[in-house]
Amino acid sequence: MASTFGRLFKLTTWGESHGPALGVVIEGCPAGIALDVTDVQLQLDRRRVGQSAVTSPRNEGDRAEILSGVFEGVTTGTPISLITYNKDADSTKYENLRNVFRPGHADYTYWAKYGHRDHRGGGRSSARETWGRVAAGAIARKILASAGAEVYGFTREIGGIAIESVDRDEIERNIVRAADPVAAERMIAAIGEAKANHDSLGGIIEIRATGVPVGLGEPTMDKLDALIAQAMLSIPAVKGVELGDGFGVVRSNGSQANDSFYVEGGRVRTRTNTAGGTLGGISSGEDIIVRLAVKPTSSVAQEQQTVDTNLQPQTILVEGRHDPSVVPRAVPVAEAMLAIVLADLMLLNRSARI
Amino acid sequence: MASTFGRLFKLTTWGESHGPALGVVIEGCPAGIALDVTDVQLQLDRRRVGQSAVTSPRNEGDRAEILSGVFEGVTTGTPISLITYNKDADSTKYENLRNVFRPGHADYTYWAKYGHRDHRGGGRSSARETWGRVAAGAIARKILASAGAEVYGFTREIGGIAIESVDRDEIERNIVRAADPVAAERMIAAIGEAKANHDSLGGIIEIRATGVPVGLGEPTMDKLDALIAQAMLSIPAVKGVELGDGFGVVRSNGSQANDSFYVEGGRVRTRTNTAGGTLGGISSGEDIIVRLAVKPTSSVAQEQQTVDTNLQPQTILVEGRHDPSVVPRAVPVAEAMLAIVLADLMLLNRSARI
Amino acid sequence: MASTFGRLFKLTTWGESHGPALGVVIEGCPAGIALDVTDVQLQLDRRRVGQSAVTSPRNEGDRAEILSGVFEGVTTGTPISLITYNKDADSTKYENLRNVFRPGHADYTYWAKYGHRDHRGGGRSSARETWGRVAAGAIARKILASAGAEVYGFTREIGGIAIESVDRDEIERNIVRAADPVAAERMIAAIGEAKANHDSLGGIIEIRATGVPVGLGEPTMDKLDALIAQAMLSIPAVKGVELGDGFGVVRSNGSQANDSFYVEGGRVRTRTNTAGGTLGGISSGEDIIVRLAVKPTSSVAQEQQTVDTNLQPQTILVEGRHDPSVVPRAVPVAEAMLAIVLADLMLLNRSARI
Amino acid sequence: MASTFGRLFKLTTWGESHGPALGVVIEGCPAGIALDVTDVQLQLDRRRVGQSAVTSPRNEGDRAEILSGVFEGVTTGTPISLITYNKDADSTKYENLRNVFRPGHADYTYWAKYGHRDHRGGGRSSARETWGRVAAGAIARKILASAGAEVYGFTREIGGIAIESVDRDEIERNIVRAADPVAAERMIAAIGEAKANHDSLGGIIEIRATGVPVGLGEPTMDKLDALIAQAMLSIPAVKGVELGDGFGVVRSNGSQANDSFYVEGGRVRTRTNTAGGTLGGISSGEDIIVRLAVKPTSSVAQEQQTVDTNLQPQTILVEGRHDPSVVPRAVPVAEAMLAIVLADLMLLNRSARI
Repeated sequence: MASTFGRLFKLTTWGESHGPALGVVIEGCPAGIALDVTDVQLQLDRRRVGQSAVTSPRNEGDRAEILSGVFEGVTTGTPISLITYNKDADSTKYENLRNVFRPGHADYTYWAKYGHRDHRGGGRSSARETWGRVAAGAIARKILASAGAEVYGFTREIGGIAIESVDRDEIERNIVRAADPVAAERMIAAIGEAKANHDSLGGIIEIRATGVPVGLGEPTMDKLDALIAQAMLSIPAVKGVELGDGFGVVRSNGSQANDSFYVEGGRVRTRTNTAGGTLGGISSGEDIIVRLAVKPTSSVAQEQQTVDTNLQPQTILVEGRHDPSVVPRAVPVAEAMLAIVLADLMLLNRSARI
Repeated sequence: MASTFGRLFKLTTWGESHGPALGVVIEGCPAGIALDVTDVQLQLDRRRVGQSAVTSPRNEGDRAEILSGVFEGVTTGTPISLITYNKDADSTKYENLRNVFRPGHADYTYWAKYGHRDHRGGGRSSARETWGRVAAGAIARKILASAGAEVYGFTREIGGIAIESVDRDEIERNIVRAADPVAAERMIAAIGEAKANHDSLGGIIEIRATGVPVGLGEPTMDKLDALIAQAMLSIPAVKGVELGDGFGVVRSNGSQANDSFYVEGGRVRTRTNTAGGTLGGISSGEDIIVRLAVKPTSSVAQEQQTVDTNLQPQTILVEGRHDPSVVPRAVPVAEAMLAIVLADLMLLNRSARI
Repeated sequence: MASTFGRLFKLTTWGESHGPALGVVIEGCPAGIALDVTDVQLQLDRRRVGQSAVTSPRNEGDRAEILSGVFEGVTTGTPISLITYNKDADSTKYENLRNVFRPGHADYTYWAKYGHRDHRGGGRSSARETWGRVAAGAIARKILASAGAEVYGFTREIGGIAIESVDRDEIERNIVRAADPVAAERMIAAIGEAKANHDSLGGIIEIRATGVPVGLGEPTMDKLDALIAQAMLSIPAVKGVELGDGFGVVRSNGSQANDSFYVEGGRVRTRTNTAGGTLGGISSGEDIIVRLAVKPTSSVAQEQQTVDTNLQPQTILVEGRHDPSVVPRAVPVAEAMLAIVLADLMLLNRSARI
Repeated sequence: MASTFGRLFKLTTWGESHGPALGVVIEGCPAGIALDVTDVQLQLDRRRVGQSAVTSPRNEGDRAEILSGVFEGVTTGTPISLITYNKDADSTKYENLRNVFRPGHADYTYWAKYGHRDHRGGGRSSARETWGRVAAGAIARKILASAGAEVYGFTREIGGIAIESVDRDEIERNIVRAADPVAAERMIAAIGEAKANHDSLGGIIEIRATGVPVGLGEPTMDKLDALIAQAMLSIPAVKGVELGDGFGVVRSNGSQANDSFYVEGGRVRTRTNTAGGTLGGISSGEDIIVRLAVKPTSSVAQEQQTVDTNLQPQTILVEGRHDPSVVPRAVPVAEAMLAIVLADLMLLNRSARI
């Protein structure tokens, strides 16, 4: 059960941080999609380490190879297997963590659940696992594009510094992926300061989808909201999600929170979008708006109190190479997960009516 | 796909608000659990309409009948079918809504998705669907109890009024299920005022689980966090979810947000619980803490601007019997969903090791 | 897991032989299908007990009620719940079997698996469970009909007596559903003789589907052949299945077994159909041809040697009301299962290409 | 959906005959199993081409690499990814088949379903896909072994020549895997003759499992019989399956077909095993006995009549390297699939009771 997401467009990721390779298998991708490895690499490069001063210095090219499911540049409908080999894994820094549980990490819970684990670089719990999600998301984006839909995301807040405007063109121009260049500068400074203090910062990401067809999502358990929520909380370090006005809506009255309908250009629209693009768990055609809370990186270069596998107290200093804030690199991961949810539901929606 | 939740302990709900009956089928419930219909009814009575001044006056006894899967008071391992018959459905109030889309409701999106829908009382999109979830949750609670775990929930905030203390004993003593009796009085007054103004209020619910075994949840896509998030956002009117410190954690540093480990009574504990009981998507043995944002009831007795199925503008006044705030009745629904997630993962965890 | 079949068009059955009711919930049925309860009842009447001298004398009207998912005579896309109440359950005959295992039945294996079971009339292992399959199949047939496809079945052999010709018009004219009226007479006589000898007979059923679209089935694990095989072997008393020439093909050479292609009326046909309508696990457009082996009814009114729950030897005489051969009543069940597989794959096929 | 099998122990295969690599990802394998790549290679070597005079001369070492899920020789509970690189793919022989449909193959149906396909060596429809099944089966066998269970298989019939005795020790001593050395010689001669005649032969395989725990399988849709049937019919070239006496049972009476219970060594046994180890879809503890019909290889070096993608008639002569009978190499594939079904159900059975 562990590593699969999706109903029709379904991905299964595999691989450990310091194992020989990581990958993803995508089942249910329709035949007939033009797909080149560069389409995938473009997204992977947005996620990879070493891309800027605010990311881990680990040096992984993260080169994708397509091993199946694509023939002469077009998908065949059969499983698409993508792989990347780990090049710069340095396990020596982790040897002293073999039997000690890092606070904030999955070390203890994996040990308790499985009894046996690959501790190197976090093993399976490393965010390197998201490589496969971003790769699959690149393909999901093509399905969205076939219907005129797309996803994009940006950093809304880091370390308490929030953007004050949203300019989509600014997002990829700064290394924190903030949609506001002024706030971006302040965020970069704050991350620098946290790093200097051997500490780390969290933040808020916003992901949007535009041009989404009406009708995606199922009425009860598989509401679009529910599947998005699952997708987002499956990303490492994410501890909250909201759609539209989200937690803010609890302070409105119903008469304010309801988005009034009107007709524009022959289609039903709402004048506001407090709902974030879903009604009753089904897409309304308005932009999907999702925000997620990302906790500060758990690996901080300070002494911390913990215990070991013998249940003895220990003081540890976590080494290794870490992002002082994972927020910027989590943006393309969250985009990918939203694209996957929407692509999957677009396919599923084809069977909604006879 | 639409109406099933769970992997091993799996429920499928069915039924419309004004159809003849509603129900749920539960697959994968282990054999050997003592189960009486009163166990289920106890929880259903906490969810039903007409229980107090702050709920809809619709009069449904919501009596459960067990139709299969239980023999001589004990579960047999085969599907458990539970049913309740609608008694007080009054569809006349909805006839004028047959072709008009209520703002904030699923009317438009169901119409756009399916082309044909039961509009009476919201049909399938009515929160009456949650009857089956609460029934299934009552059984899930028995699985939790077998391991010494339990769930409970309370109202944290309604209409901007927040509790200032958490006293579990107070929860069921007030009709808003607030964990603070002083705040409860103020919430009740606020709901009364909103109702008088033909308006409605939203709020925040907190659900906790105690005594949860370590090891529940899968490492990547099926993180405990992710499954809880899906469960919560599948509940009508819920627009956000967070675990532990959730959105609040984004303003901590990593050194603050990490919960330090220590050993108490031979087991690993954390001194704080900012994570809300999960690490790397797997339960840590600390209390699971979940909060959800519930939007104000969309049905408000005011004139609203909308459109109809001919895409013509319309002004509507929604009649029918509604909760001025669904928060109090959503508490047992959210509890049920958390219980279901945990029970399912407890069963799944039995195959984690050889 | 236990009681669900299908991927998009998905049924879940529930209920015990002597419980209050039996039913089925169908998820994923497309909206927009005209559906009346009489469509369903028509098929259920072909399956019900008491319909002729060769079936059990238990008297069950097997009346279906539609409880959800259909509004004003048309499916809405939401779960369709169908129920029937048991009327003529007589549990007294089973009291002596509470702790004794009937040979050929599931008594021992249920006891060993679950520790606790409803023994009355076989409980969940009774073929009464197939009521829901036939009901769901009636709806699946409508999906097939929308594409010009249909299924039908007949008895090919009972008690060693095989048909010598296939005349579809004859099938429902005789109580054994043989496609050859001469053989039908001999089969009826053989069943009468077996019954007089307190014994029972098995046989072979053939199910066909015509007008099936090309392209149903997935290339590897979910081959059309594989899903049909699962469907057929999930029917009580079925112990074998074959497609096309099946076991007979093992005595051909490849040059004989290959069905040559040609073009007729603008579409690709094969001159022979040894493959039974599938190639590489995907429908070819030729008739689907499936045969299944049905074992003789395990309940025979003779003394049999067995053991009880205390592992003590026992001699039993199974009473109750049984079919001397279940073959005729299994025909509509097998038809239903084939219709369900094909309808499901027709929906799934909508996402095969972009 | 296409390429996944299993519920808890779940495999997903990927890869094409002439693509760069093939592989399998296994989810849900319990942690704590000692696993070396040689355990897997041992089984793969039984399946690979070029092992004897009766198999295709294609030269593939089929070397497995374990890329994830195993750490220091023990499974970790996370996905196990296994890969092999194609070394001896020769696509030139297939260029003339790009637009022509080989009779008996999936060429036409893939083309009709997907519109676009990798035609080289059959692409995804090649039996090379079964590499991943055998690899996964090797791991499933370890789960079986932990409970004292094992599977083995043998050739029962090739080209009309049937074995007359079953000596398990003989199976791997002859290149056709017949359980009777005398019949083996005759089968080898028959295959040689068919090859000389540019033709091919089919046959019957029998797979058995011993030491299987009582209680595997679910009562209705997921009967052990049904899952075995799905597993077997998902193997290329298999057109029929039967359990126990299978199609033969249709000529018994119920009084003969029922296997009488007795107690031996404190456990319930049956004196005969006509049922093949299942009762009511659940394992009884007796040997599981499964037989499958394998059609003659579709690739025969004779001229055949067919059509092309322009729907024009064509005469083709299929070149490439093929097994004159796939029966011997299908034995380890079928064993693997049975092992996978049983291992999966063993894990699932852990949640049958509270």
